[in-house]
Amino acid sequence: MLPSVRALFFDVFGTIVDWRRGIARESERLLAPLGYEIDCLAFADAWRAEYQPAMEEVRSGRIAFARLDVVHRRMLDTVRPAFGLEKLDERACEKLTLAWHRLDAWVDAKRAFPRLRKRYLVAPVSNGNIALMVDLARHNDLRWDAILGAEIANDYKPKPRVYLAAAEALALSPGECMMVAAHSSDLKAAADAGLRTGHVARAEEAPGKGERGPAVPVDVAARDFDDFANQLGA
Amino acid sequence: MLPSVRALFFDVFGTIVDWRRGIARESERLLAPLGYEIDCLAFADAWRAEYQPAMEEVRSGRIAFARLDVVHRRMLDTVRPAFGLEKLDERACEKLTLAWHRLDAWVDAKRAFPRLRKRYLVAPVSNGNIALMVDLARHNDLRWDAILGAEIANDYKPKPRVYLAAAEALALSPGECMMVAAHSSDLKAAADAGLRTGHVARAEEAPGKGERGPAVPVDVAARDFDDFANQLGA
Repeated sequence: MLPSVRALFFDVFGTIVDWRRGIARESERLLAPLGYEIDCLAFADAWRAEYQPAMEEVRSGRIAFARLDVVHRRMLDTVRPAFGLEKLDERACEKLTLAWHRLDAWVDAKRAFPRLRKRYLVAPVSNGNIALMVDLARHNDLRWDAILGAEIANDYKPKPRVYLAAAEALALSPGECMMVAAHSSDLKAAADAGLRTGHVARAEEAPGKGERGPAVPVDVAARDFDDFANQLGA
Repeated sequence: MLPSVRALFFDVFGTIVDWRRGIARESERLLAPLGYEIDCLAFADAWRAEYQPAMEEVRSGRIAFARLDVVHRRMLDTVRPAFGLEKLDERACEKLTLAWHRLDAWVDAKRAFPRLRKRYLVAPVSNGNIALMVDLARHNDLRWDAILGAEIANDYKPKPRVYLAAAEALALSPGECMMVAAHSSDLKAAADAGLRTGHVARAEEAPGKGERGPAVPVDVAARDFDDFANQLGA
C-alpha cells in the first residue's frame, strides 16, 4: 500500500524511545550516589514538561536556534529548584543532560525496524540534535540511512521547514515521505507540509499523555510498530 | 594509538568508492542501448576533470551552493559535446547523473569498515550530497552513524567550514576527529582546521591521479584500509 512512499521519517522521543522511564533510571543512577533521593519519575515528567515552552522560544524567533542538548540543559536549570538540585555542580548537570542520549527504544520499535528498513529509507526527523540521535542509534542498535530533523533545518518541529528540509535532503518530494509518530500534533503539521502520515499508538508514553489513536486524519493508524510494519507490507 | 580520536570522517569519491570504473560501467550500461559507442573510461575521466573547476565556482562565492547532484549534471553538460552526446535527452541525462549513486566501494574499504565502526563513530565528510551518500551506503552496505559533509555545511571541501561543521554536528572538538582520505589536499585542509588526519594509499584511483603515499604530514599513513584499521587498533 502507499506505493509512492520511499522514505519513513520517525519522531523519536516517545515514539521510538521511552524517555520517561529512561530519564528516571538515568537520573537515579547519577543522583543517588551524590546523596539525592528524589521522585525520579516525577523529575522526568517535570523536565519534559519544560519542552514545549522551550521549543516555542525558538520557534517564535524570540531566541536563536540552539541544538536540543543545549535546550535540555536550560530546561534542567528551570526544574532543578523544585527537586532540591540547586547545588548540583556543573559536571553533574552536564552528565545528567546526557541522560537523554541513553534512552531505551520500545521493544516493538526495535523489532519492527529492520523490516521497515528493508523496504524504505529510514531517518529520524526529531527535534533532537545529530549527536543525540547518533548516540541513541548506537545505544539501541538502530540503523538509520541519515540523521535528519531540527539540526538540518535550524528550526524545530512542528514548523513546516523541518519536514520539508528532510524530504529535500533525500531528494524526494514531500508526498514520497511519511512522518511516523505517536503524537497527532506532529502528524498534523507533517500532513500540512504535504507528507504522508503514520500514527503508532503509544498509550504507555506517560500518564495522560500517550495517545491510543490519532486525533487527526492519518494515512496509517497502527496499534504498535509490528502492526505498522504489517500495514506497510514491510 | 591516538586515544583522543572519537570519530573518523571519510572522503568518499576515490577513497571509499571507485568512481572511475563505476562511472565507465554505468555510462556504458546506459548509453550502449541508445546506440552510443564511446570510450567510457575516457568519458569518466573527462567528467571528473570538471570537478575542481565546478567546485571552485561555489567555493569562491561566484555561484551559490548547489548540491553535488546538481553540479554533476552541470559538469555533464560541459563534457557532452566532446563525446557526441549533445542530443542526449533530459531523461537520459538525469539517469546518467545518477550513475554517481551506484559506484562500488573498494574491497579493502568494505572489509575494514565494520572493524573501524566498532571503535569509532564513522561518517562521510564528502562533497557529495546527503541523498547521494545514502544511495552509495545502501549500494555498498556501509553503515554510517550520520551523513555529514558539504550539504550540512553549505560549502565545499577543502573550505575549513566543512570539516568544522562535521565535528560540531557530533559535539566533538576538531582534535577528536580524524579525516581519512586518499588525497593529500583534503588532509592538508583538515589538518589546518585542527583535525587529525589519516592517509590511505589509492594508487589505482585513476591514471596519474592516485597517491602512493601522503604528500603532506599526516598522523597515520596506510597502504590500504586493512593496514589503516590495524594501525588504529580497530
